[in-house]
Amino acid sequence: MLEKTTRMNYLYDFYQSLLTPKQRSYMALYYLEDNSLGEIAEEYNISRQAVYDNIKRTEQMLEQYEEKLLLFQKFQERQELINKLKGTLLTNPSKEEILTFIESLEKLD
Amino acid sequence: MLEKTTRMNYLYDFYQSLLTPKQRSYMALYYLEDNSLGEIAEEYNISRQAVYDNIKRTEQMLEQYEEKLLLFQKFQERQELINKLKGTLLTNPSKEEILTFIESLEKLD
Repeated sequence: MLEKTTRMNYLYDFYQSLLTPKQRSYMALYYLEDNSLGEIAEEYNISRQAVYDNIKRTEQMLEQYEEKLLLFQKFQERQELINKLKGTLLTNPSKEEILTFIESLEKLD
Repeated sequence: MLEKTTRMNYLYDFYQSLLTPKQRSYMALYYLEDNSLGEIAEEYNISRQAVYDNIKRTEQMLEQYEEKLLLFQKFQERQELINKLKGTLLTNPSKEEILTFIESLEKLD
């Protein structure tokens, strides 16, 4: 569950601009601010089930966007390369070694 | 016009997965393979106007996706940083200088 929450926070971060204002509100309250479905339902004066359905649909939309655009996956790949490059910098690498990392970063785009 | 074609090629590259198969076909024929509206109309047996309208609408969609997700803009910013870093590598930079570039790259995500 914690893993899912982390993933949803990232996907929300990358794709929130493609959601409706209502979808954004529910997702932010549920995933970022850790409100319960009941609390959100009360705040918006709708049923708990309606909140649940909306959030489930939004989660599916976010996963579909990720399937198509891979922004989260590419972000992770870039972060991994950048961290490796930072580690390599501690060992007095040659220019060629640094260039190899930079070219791998370029290829990710 | 050349500038617009280049921009549309990039936007198509970044967002084609969000288009319908028909939108993808028309855009690829028009922008990547440089067919005329008339040639596309003939191939699909529809009016030149219908092809034109579809392509205009798709162009607007691509611009809207870019407004929301900024993938092309961030790509350009990353490329610029990477090119500067490559140039800097020719001048025997310190680790700190290289690290500054890497941290700027990280911030773009």
